[in-house]
Order: sequence, then structure tokens, then C-alpha cells
Amino acid sequence: MSIKLQELVDRFGGQLIGDGNVEVVGFAPLDDASSDRITFLTNPKLRNEVAACKAAALIISPKDNQIVGDQFAGVRIVAPNPYAYFAHAAQLFQSLKMEPPKPGIHPSACIDPTAEIAPSATIGPFVTIEAGARIGEGCYIEAGCFIGRNAKVGAGCHFFPRVVFMYECEIGERSVLRPGAVIGCEGFGFANENGVWVKIPQTGRVIIGNDVQIGANTTVDRGALADTIVENGVKLDNQIQIGHNCHIGENSAMAGCVGVAGSATFGKNCTVGGAAMIGGHLTIADGVHVTASSVVQSSIEKRGVYSGFYPLAPHRDWEKSAVLIRRLGSMRDRIRELEKTIQTLTEKTK
Amino acid sequence: MSIKLQELVDRFGGQLIGDGNVEVVGFAPLDDASSDRITFLTNPKLRNEVAACKAAALIISPKDNQIVGDQFAGVRIVAPNPYAYFAHAAQLFQSLKMEPPKPGIHPSACIDPTAEIAPSATIGPFVTIEAGARIGEGCYIEAGCFIGRNAKVGAGCHFFPRVVFMYECEIGERSVLRPGAVIGCEGFGFANENGVWVKIPQTGRVIIGNDVQIGANTTVDRGALADTIVENGVKLDNQIQIGHNCHIGENSAMAGCVGVAGSATFGKNCTVGGAAMIGGHLTIADGVHVTASSVVQSSIEKRGVYSGFYPLAPHRDWEKSAVLIRRLGSMRDRIRELEKTIQTLTEKTK
Amino acid sequence: MSIKLQELVDRFGGQLIGDGNVEVVGFAPLDDASSDRITFLTNPKLRNEVAACKAAALIISPKDNQIVGDQFAGVRIVAPNPYAYFAHAAQLFQSLKMEPPKPGIHPSACIDPTAEIAPSATIGPFVTIEAGARIGEGCYIEAGCFIGRNAKVGAGCHFFPRVVFMYECEIGERSVLRPGAVIGCEGFGFANENGVWVKIPQTGRVIIGNDVQIGANTTVDRGALADTIVENGVKLDNQIQIGHNCHIGENSAMAGCVGVAGSATFGKNCTVGGAAMIGGHLTIADGVHVTASSVVQSSIEKRGVYSGFYPLAPHRDWEKSAVLIRRLGSMRDRIRELEKTIQTLTEKTK
Repeated sequence: MSIKLQELVDRFGGQLIGDGNVEVVGFAPLDDASSDRITFLTNPKLRNEVAACKAAALIISPKDNQIVGDQFAGVRIVAPNPYAYFAHAAQLFQSLKMEPPKPGIHPSACIDPTAEIAPSATIGPFVTIEAGARIGEGCYIEAGCFIGRNAKVGAGCHFFPRVVFMYECEIGERSVLRPGAVIGCEGFGFANENGVWVKIPQTGRVIIGNDVQIGANTTVDRGALADTIVENGVKLDNQIQIGHNCHIGENSAMAGCVGVAGSATFGKNCTVGGAAMIGGHLTIADGVHVTASSVVQSSIEKRGVYSGFYPLAPHRDWEKSAVLIRRLGSMRDRIRELEKTIQTLTEKTK
Repeated sequence: MSIKLQELVDRFGGQLIGDGNVEVVGFAPLDDASSDRITFLTNPKLRNEVAACKAAALIISPKDNQIVGDQFAGVRIVAPNPYAYFAHAAQLFQSLKMEPPKPGIHPSACIDPTAEIAPSATIGPFVTIEAGARIGEGCYIEAGCFIGRNAKVGAGCHFFPRVVFMYECEIGERSVLRPGAVIGCEGFGFANENGVWVKIPQTGRVIIGNDVQIGANTTVDRGALADTIVENGVKLDNQIQIGHNCHIGENSAMAGCVGVAGSATFGKNCTVGGAAMIGGHLTIADGVHVTASSVVQSSIEKRGVYSGFYPLAPHRDWEKSAVLIRRLGSMRDRIRELEKTIQTLTEKTK
Repeated sequence: MSIKLQELVDRFGGQLIGDGNVEVVGFAPLDDASSDRITFLTNPKLRNEVAACKAAALIISPKDNQIVGDQFAGVRIVAPNPYAYFAHAAQLFQSLKMEPPKPGIHPSACIDPTAEIAPSATIGPFVTIEAGARIGEGCYIEAGCFIGRNAKVGAGCHFFPRVVFMYECEIGERSVLRPGAVIGCEGFGFANENGVWVKIPQTGRVIIGNDVQIGANTTVDRGALADTIVENGVKLDNQIQIGHNCHIGENSAMAGCVGVAGSATFGKNCTVGGAAMIGGHLTIADGVHVTASSVVQSSIEKRGVYSGFYPLAPHRDWEKSAVLIRRLGSMRDRIRELEKTIQTLTEKTK
């Protein structure tokens, strides 16, 4: 289960400084790595721990290598993005440890005869797959998942236990749905008729791209008339709610507990911090970063970092407001003082 | 699968202007409808698109019909609430497309012999129904649902996959629970005894009325001593948390990610915007509308629209505060300027 | 199903004033209790209802007993913490009413042959238990739960329906997981490589202690390299998200909809109010109480009550800021008035 450093470099690139025959069994943090481990340096604050680091190998950026590379006793792999290098290499270590699921359909699963399951797919116990659904090659659908009629699941997808993937929805290749995720639930659409809410059928679908990851107990609603779209490479954390007719652009990522109201459109490469709330019917440009717990009530047209609550403001402006809110008491006192002084002055100059 | 316009008018009323024999296959947005579709006008901004609209038929209000009705080339249905008309008609179209579930109990379902299942109900695969539970006529309980002992489900209810409906809870007729909803979980009640939390048994139930809809992964806790009540016609979106002993009044609606702490009482016809948080042990009057992301920490006694964070304020007042927060920097600068001027004045008048 | 008051005192202590042979069938609120019930006084506002209370027995603190004890017609149990006494006694009443589950494995359950299930455990229908998992004595694993490979569940745990407990995670004794909870989902860790997110394998576990309770649809992520830790006695309400590598100290409690970002460390005996959001990589001292809907963006080093949004402040300071925000309009008006007066004064003194 160990890997030679030369093999890592052959797979993921980088410049090897030292003996490529050295073997490592996995990763460990820089300040806690034993001599059979590989580690990485990304945080400049940890540069001064490199000298004492006991790891067999260190992934390091060219810049950090110039500064502290000499101080490391083991083998170095110099690569431009050590954190991404770590991610790739750690995936390799994990794949060696994880036994791949055995293809086949568990006898307890309930599969409609008209569903098409690729021979290399693995279907776990108590899975329900309805009529006309299609499951691609190499998919792993774990225990208790539900896949509705005519849904399409691309090759290499992994549905963790208890995922609900509703009728007619589609997902691309290599995408991952975590436990309890609900995709394609009917959106929240009602017409008010004399105080009574009349349900508006939600006849759109959810269309999800390739390499998407959706977290535990996250919900993505199907569209009302059109579809809800989640583009390639999007990553959604746990407990997120995406309303009907939203469109999430390529490689955008959202942290836990975010809510996105209906018909919001996100550009590419956006990030949304945890528990931020995005209003409906608005448009967010490419490359927008909304910080945690912010509330976005109107469209954002320029890339940049945005923070704060109603009204949302560019991050720096919000920080100023936040400081000023704490000083409100002193501002009030200064106004009082001014009023007194002026009262005195006014009387003097009468 | 097409419907004659005359049939729509026979079912849902409205004044037909044009040929009732024209057939339509479904709805489409006003600006994107082909000639086999019906559409509707509710947004005044779209009035100027009526002339170019290619739909076979248009649902329009009497007022809009006077303004732009003539410009529409197809058949008109004039009705006082086009959006509600759309909702009813779209439900009809959907019912034609959806094959109704076949009554009967899936052989894999685990049903206690003392449970009573109406003959016209449909019970899906891997459903668990415990002792003494009762499922009404025409219910559709989808795959993987759990219904606890002595629970009562009224006629015509639809539980989507993986709903948990706990022991002794009750739900009326035609109500819908979406995937992953958990009804009747024990509420969060503990007594603190020297730093250790002692569980207080939650012996109340959840009682839900008719025509209620509850969203995906939403949780409604059972009461501590008394019951948690959700009245007729209430609509709850996804990922909402309703604490123990809450009482939600008739036809109130809440958008996604709302949290309601224990023992809160809502009147009738309230709405709560997405991600708003409602404190416990407070009372909200009939007809109160809380906007998205607001935090409600005290009771609201008058109908109206409320917004903002701690302290909550009527919407207009909050908007003023929000603007003023952005101007805090300029206010501080003006105070500084005043202080300087007064310093000068004071010296002059010495 | 009734209990003699003497038996309560034998089990839970307290000073009996009156006839210990009186029997009660359960609890009721002080103002609504019939003569076969026991009740308790904790809220000072209810002291003046003691005289009219019809309950057979009253649990009362020594102090309240001195003030209003004489006014109560029935039997009194004087105990230092009537609320905790109620919790213990109510658990006893509930245990008499609830039929204990019958040990054994439901024939529909899917248990790997290498899993070890204690003979006294109860495994419900459609439960999946993977290879190497261990389930302790007296556990009750309800319908549809999933327990991953090599997971360890201590004695006396209760998993409500549809819990997901992932591979290699561990939980101590007498802990309770409510419906839809997901423990050990892979955390949200990605490295950005030229705009594309590369998954970082989450190789840590979730380790949960004894007497922990976790609410419905709550999610606790497994650690990235190290483990996520939930210590003994922690209580988490519904719909909470705990990020990877968090550490929640003993007997801390969090109300519904709280979010805790990755690598946050909580001390012992903390409480977090509903929907509060805790940022990542910060440390919260023992005995910190964060009020509902607050946003915590930096570490808290001293015990105490904290409230508010960015910037978080001690509760009293925040209340002042909140009041001042409402007075911003008047502050602006006073500044304007000052400016005018000074303009006049300046001209006069020229």
C-alpha cells in the first residue's frame, strides 16, 4: 500500500529533488508527520517548521523551495500548486485503500424491468429504480437510493446511501451525490386565490453536469416550466437549498447551509460562504465571491468579494460599516456634547 | 393529451373570446410559447409582448384585456386571477400526463398485520408501516417511507420517497410530504442538572390538517406535553425546521430554510420569506408577512410586512436604517467637522 | 401504569410532604392538571396559580415551597431542581408506556456476515449493515438505517429510522441519532487548480461519545486528515451542520439550524442558539453561550453570553448597538440641525 515518490512524479508531474525510490504510505500534516509519510507546504506560517519536519517527502512550491527547501532533510517534490498536488496524490492513496464495489445488482433492489442498468454498475440493497431510468457504466448506487422514472445517470457516478433522484432528472459523468441529498423535488410554487394556495405543477427537470458534487441532505428543486441547471464541476456542500429554475455556473462552489431562492443565476467560478442567503430572480456575475452569512438581495454585476447583510456591500465597505456600528454609542455621545457646546456658544453670542 | 379551450372554461370558468374548439397541449411562458400552447399574462411588464405572442390561447385579467387584449391574435380566456387559473389548468395537464399509481401493496413493503391500509392506497417498495397505523383511501406512499405505530394518514395523501412520519402523528386529507421530510421527531427538550442535560420526554404529537404541503428534508417536531399543530392549507418549503409545540395557522406559507423555535404561534395567512428565523414562545398575528432572512425575536401583534434583523422593524423603517448604516462613515465625518468648527468658534468667542 | 409518589422519591430523591401512597398517571402543566396528575413549579410567574392547582402532587424548590408551598392542597415533593426532577420522572412514565423493542434482526435487513450484532440488539426492516461493523448490546437500529463498514456502535444506542452512519465512524453508549441524521459524510475539501476543484479525500472519521443526542437531518462530516470529535453528553438539535475536523466539547448543546464551519473547536458546557453560524478554524472557550441567529467570526476566549452579527459583541453591547441603529435617523437629523446652527454662529462671529 506504499507508493514510490517516482511514481507520484510520473503521474502528477513536479521536479523531484532526492531519491525517487523512497516509498510513502500516505499523507500527514507537516508538524505531525512520521518518516513513512509525505506532507506539503502551503501555509507561509509553517515555513519555519520545515527544518524539524520528519516526513519522508515534502511537496513544495518553487518560491517556498527557494526560501526553505534546503532546510528539509527528506526528498522534495517541487510543484506550482502543492495543495492541488496533495489532492491528486491523496486520491491515489485512497483508491489503493478502498476496495472497489463489485459490479452487479443486489438481490433486494427493486428495479423496474424497463430500467437500463449498465453491466459494470453496482446497485446496493433496497435501491428503487423506476421505469425507463438509465444507469451508466461504473456507477455505484448505494443502499436505499431512489431513482425516479426516466431519470438518467451518467457513467462513473457515485450516489451515497439514501439519495433521492426524482423522475426525468439527468446527471452527467463522475458526479457524486452524498447521503440524503434530494434532487428534483417539486419547487415551491403556488398561486394565491382568495387566501388559499393553489399548487403550480413543476414540470421542469434538474439537469446536472459532469464532475459535480452535492452534499448530504442538500436539496435541488426541479424547475417550474424550464429546467434547473447545475453546470459541470459545481461543488455544493451539505444542507444547501437550491430553488426551482436556478442556474449554477461551471466550477462554482457553495459551503454548507447556503440557501438560493428560485430563478437565481450564478456565473462561473463563483464561491458562496457558509449560510449565505441568495435572493430569487437575480443574477451573479462570473468570479463573484460572497462571504459567509451574507445576505444577497440584488444582482451583482462585477467580479469581486462581497460581504454583509442587507444592504450587501463590497467587503471593505461592509467592514467599515461594521466597525462604525460598534462606535454608534460614541457618535451619539459626541453629538450630545456638540449640542451642549453650541447651546452655550449660542447664548454667548446673543 | 391535448385539451379544448372550451373544456378549460367549463371546468375553471372565465369568459371565452374566440373558438372554444381550439386545442392546446400545455403551458409555456408568454415570450416563448409555440402555437400549440396556452399562456397567461400576470406581469404588467410583459403587456407589450402580447402582440407578438404566438400561443394559441392567453389567460388574461379583465383589466389587462381592456388594455392589450385586442393585440392578441389567438383565443382569450378572461378571468380575474390568471395566475391561479394557470395553476388549476396546469394541474389538469399534469394529471393527464402522470399515470396514476396502481393501488396495492408492493411485496417488499413491511406492513404490521394490525395496520389498516385502504384498498385504494398504493404502498411502494421498502415502506415500513408499524402496528396500528391507518392509511386512507387513495394514498400514495412512495418507496422507503416509514410510518410509525398508530399514526393516521387521511385520504388522498402523497408521501414522496423516504418520508419519516413518526408514531401517533396525524395528517388530514390530500396533504403532501416531500422526500426526506421528518414529521414527529422528538423535540429538543432537556433540563440542565449540574451541567448535564437530562432528556425531557416529548409526549405530544404532530397534528397536520388537510391540503398541507411540506418540503424536502423539512422537520416538524412533536410536542413536549401538548401537540404541535399545522393547520389546513399550510405550505412549507424545503429544509424548514419547526420546533416542538408550534402552531402554524391556516393557509400560512414559509419559504426554504426558515427556522421556527419551539412554542411559536402563527396566525392565518402569514408568509415567511426564505431563511427567516422566528424565535420561540412568541405569537404572530394573522396576515403577517416576514421578509427573507429576517430575524423575529418578539411577538408581532398587527398584520403587515416586517423586515430586518434584531431589532426587527416594519419594512419601511428597516430600509431607512439600512441606508443610514451605509452612511455611517459620512455621519462620522460630519461630526468631526462640527467638532473642529466649534473648537474654532469657542476660541473666537472666549 | 400509575406510580406511587413514594416510588418517585425512592428513585429520584426529594422531601415528601404528604401521603406517599397517592398514585399519579403522568405529568400535566400546572394550570391544566387533573387530580390524577403530577406537576412542577419552575416559572416564578406561576406561583400565584399554585393555590388553584388541582394536581395530586407538585414538585417544588425549597425556596418556592417556603413562599407558596402551603397554598397547595395536594402532596409536595421538595427538590432543588424541579425541572430536572420532572425530566427524570417523565422518563420513567414514558418507559412504562413504551413497549421495549424485541431483540433480533428483521428478516429483511441486509447484514454482512462479518458484522457483529449483539444478541440483545434490535435491527429493524431494510437496515443495511456493512462488513466489519459492530452493534452493541441493547441497541435499537430502526427501519432503513445504514451503517457503513467497520463502524462501531456502543451499547444502548438508539438510531431512529433512516439514519446514515458512515464507514469507520464510532459512537459510544446510550447515544441517540434521530431520523435522517447523516454522520461521517465526506467533508467539503477541494483544492483549486486553474479554476477546477480537485477533491481532497477525507480520511478522518467521526468519533462520538456517550449520551450524545443528534437531531433529525443533522449532518456531521468526517475529518480530512484527523477526526471530527463530538464529546460525551453533547446535544445537537435538528438540521445542524458540523463541518470536518470540528471538536464539540462535553455537554455542549446547539439548537436547530446551527451551522459550524470546519475545524471549529468548542469547549465544554457551551450553548448555541438556533440558526447561529460559527466560522471555521476558531476556538470557543468553555461555558460560552451564543444567542440565536448570531454570527461568530472569531474565537471567543472568555466564558459569557455573546450576541449579534458581524461584528459579534457581548450581548449587552450588541443590544445597545441594536437600539442605536433604530435611532440613526434621529442622529442624522441632529447632525443636520447642528450644522445649520453652526453655520449661523460662524456668520455671526465673523
